[in-house]
Amino acid sequence: MTHVKAYAATSATSGLRPSTIERRETGAHDVAIDIEFCGLCHSDVHTIRSEWGQAKYPLVPGHEIVGIISRVGDSVEGFTVGQRVGVGCMVDSCRECDSCLEGFEQYCEAGMVGTYGAADKRNGGTITQGGYSQGIVVDENYVVHIPEGMDPAATAPLLCAGVTTYSPLRYLDVQEGDTVGVIGLGGLGHMAVKIAKALGATVTVFTTSPAKASAAFALGADNVVVSTDSDDMAGAQHSLNAILDTVAAVHDLNPYLRTLARDGALIQLGLPSEKMPPVDPGLLIRKRLAYGGSLIGGIAETQEMLDFCAEHGILSDIEMVSAAELDEAYDRMVAGDVKYRFVLDASTL
Amino acid sequence: MTHVKAYAATSATSGLRPSTIERRETGAHDVAIDIEFCGLCHSDVHTIRSEWGQAKYPLVPGHEIVGIISRVGDSVEGFTVGQRVGVGCMVDSCRECDSCLEGFEQYCEAGMVGTYGAADKRNGGTITQGGYSQGIVVDENYVVHIPEGMDPAATAPLLCAGVTTYSPLRYLDVQEGDTVGVIGLGGLGHMAVKIAKALGATVTVFTTSPAKASAAFALGADNVVVSTDSDDMAGAQHSLNAILDTVAAVHDLNPYLRTLARDGALIQLGLPSEKMPPVDPGLLIRKRLAYGGSLIGGIAETQEMLDFCAEHGILSDIEMVSAAELDEAYDRMVAGDVKYRFVLDASTL
Repeated sequence: MTHVKAYAATSATSGLRPSTIERRETGAHDVAIDIEFCGLCHSDVHTIRSEWGQAKYPLVPGHEIVGIISRVGDSVEGFTVGQRVGVGCMVDSCRECDSCLEGFEQYCEAGMVGTYGAADKRNGGTITQGGYSQGIVVDENYVVHIPEGMDPAATAPLLCAGVTTYSPLRYLDVQEGDTVGVIGLGGLGHMAVKIAKALGATVTVFTTSPAKASAAFALGADNVVVSTDSDDMAGAQHSLNAILDTVAAVHDLNPYLRTLARDGALIQLGLPSEKMPPVDPGLLIRKRLAYGGSLIGGIAETQEMLDFCAEHGILSDIEMVSAAELDEAYDRMVAGDVKYRFVLDASTL
Repeated sequence: MTHVKAYAATSATSGLRPSTIERRETGAHDVAIDIEFCGLCHSDVHTIRSEWGQAKYPLVPGHEIVGIISRVGDSVEGFTVGQRVGVGCMVDSCRECDSCLEGFEQYCEAGMVGTYGAADKRNGGTITQGGYSQGIVVDENYVVHIPEGMDPAATAPLLCAGVTTYSPLRYLDVQEGDTVGVIGLGGLGHMAVKIAKALGATVTVFTTSPAKASAAFALGADNVVVSTDSDDMAGAQHSLNAILDTVAAVHDLNPYLRTLARDGALIQLGLPSEKMPPVDPGLLIRKRLAYGGSLIGGIAETQEMLDFCAEHGILSDIEMVSAAELDEAYDRMVAGDVKYRFVLDASTL
């Protein structure tokens, strides 16, 4: 057992405070990682504020982890000390169900073990603690390599925001000549724009704020549609093959469904805590549309995404924060005041 | 111009009454058909009662038409006098948009011309009149061949109910080993069971009424789940690859979505006239599900479906009605009191 510094919430309203947590000994199949950086995800806020159900406190959030391997277990085959690696949203799964065996560990039929706040069945049922900490011990099967030359801080958000947008774009087989819409220009949205562009798509960003147009174009968007402008929305009618919806607040999907061409799909990635207005089935029927969802990505797919991003020079646009600034960063994140992802410098813990 | 006997509605509450309608001269690309049989579709009821918007009266419904060619235009290439043919839900489309050129005329970007109640642009904008009539004149591009040996009356419902269920099953690439659920055991539902079975799927029928179980098994269903029985529904959790939802009344889809396995899709085919309860996006996200819609099928696909049904000995289970019984048949259809499709004997008009 080792002890590492961390920042933890002790209740839904405590904010994040300095803490010390235990990490297990490095088992035969484990790697121990000295954390360098950890991205701040909107899920972290929802979870520690118990907005997605009662959290188990004290809780250290963080599932966009990049660091350097400090120790490897005797049976570890894929990693060596000194390598830069990443850990995303899960640290284990059953490894036996069809989803696990097919590389879709995120859809594990027994339930994946989240990087924080989950019961770690293979380790005595202790509650997992995340990446706002100096170190973590993870089974090598749930660790990915960070390609040479990638900036480690700007790579951290790829472990969740990157793969969460990459996975549905690949599942939908988006390629050269396709048209992709992105709703919301936050942590997920800005990654969706970059990855869709790198896949060869023409990208339309939907925003409620005309002021965000220049930011969208700067990220590589080809078109910007102001979703509150009905003329603008009408101009985009039946023009898109796919839409990634990254907004986790309640909103009406029907105006966006009208911008899909035949056989188009709107994939929801953000999960609102309140009920959404109903989708009009007539819109789905008349253009053979699909309204779907997607959850992060598998481990092999996360590695594939990192390699893809390295090849295409894709990183997250980040703003670095120190541990003492975490509460303020959360408030700014909820207010949408970040371009586009906060990353915690773990050396400040 | 010729005149044929028909049954028409003159208002939303008139019911169907004897009438005489005009059919255009057989143009160069037209075939004239002596109608033998026409299926009664739930859409007919919605439309003539103005439940899907104000209908244009007088209106002759009917879009599951089987008959014998009595005349062909000079330029007709695919049909000859005396052949048995079918006409489904559309009699024209723009023939220029991507959807038309790709064989998806039902999704024509200019709007398909429905077999009844639609403005027939290529013929002076007259309102089309359907198959509850002795004869019809249709461009050969919107006519299909009825394979030899198929019972003409029991084939008529395939032109709408058959292709409406065949098309999404093929679009989803349902095949041997897949599991398919069918919600609702009416005209569409009973065809969905037969076609899914013929494609090699294991079929589960959802019904609100345990009394329908034996009927479902008789049609070939492998399992019956009583949707109002929460234990029964829980037993089906995550078991299905696809669900065809043929119910046109308002109902909550979320319990059905929970029966889909990862990457499963629920395809809505019936269009309720009221708003549906909202779909829970969390269900979509956690299993990468899709909630979609599908509209009839293209012309080539309708021919393919007829050939498939002929090969597999699939017909609709029908109850024959005379013209004088149409109003009563509509009431029974709305009450769900038909196994499984009424067919009008056009010789009684």
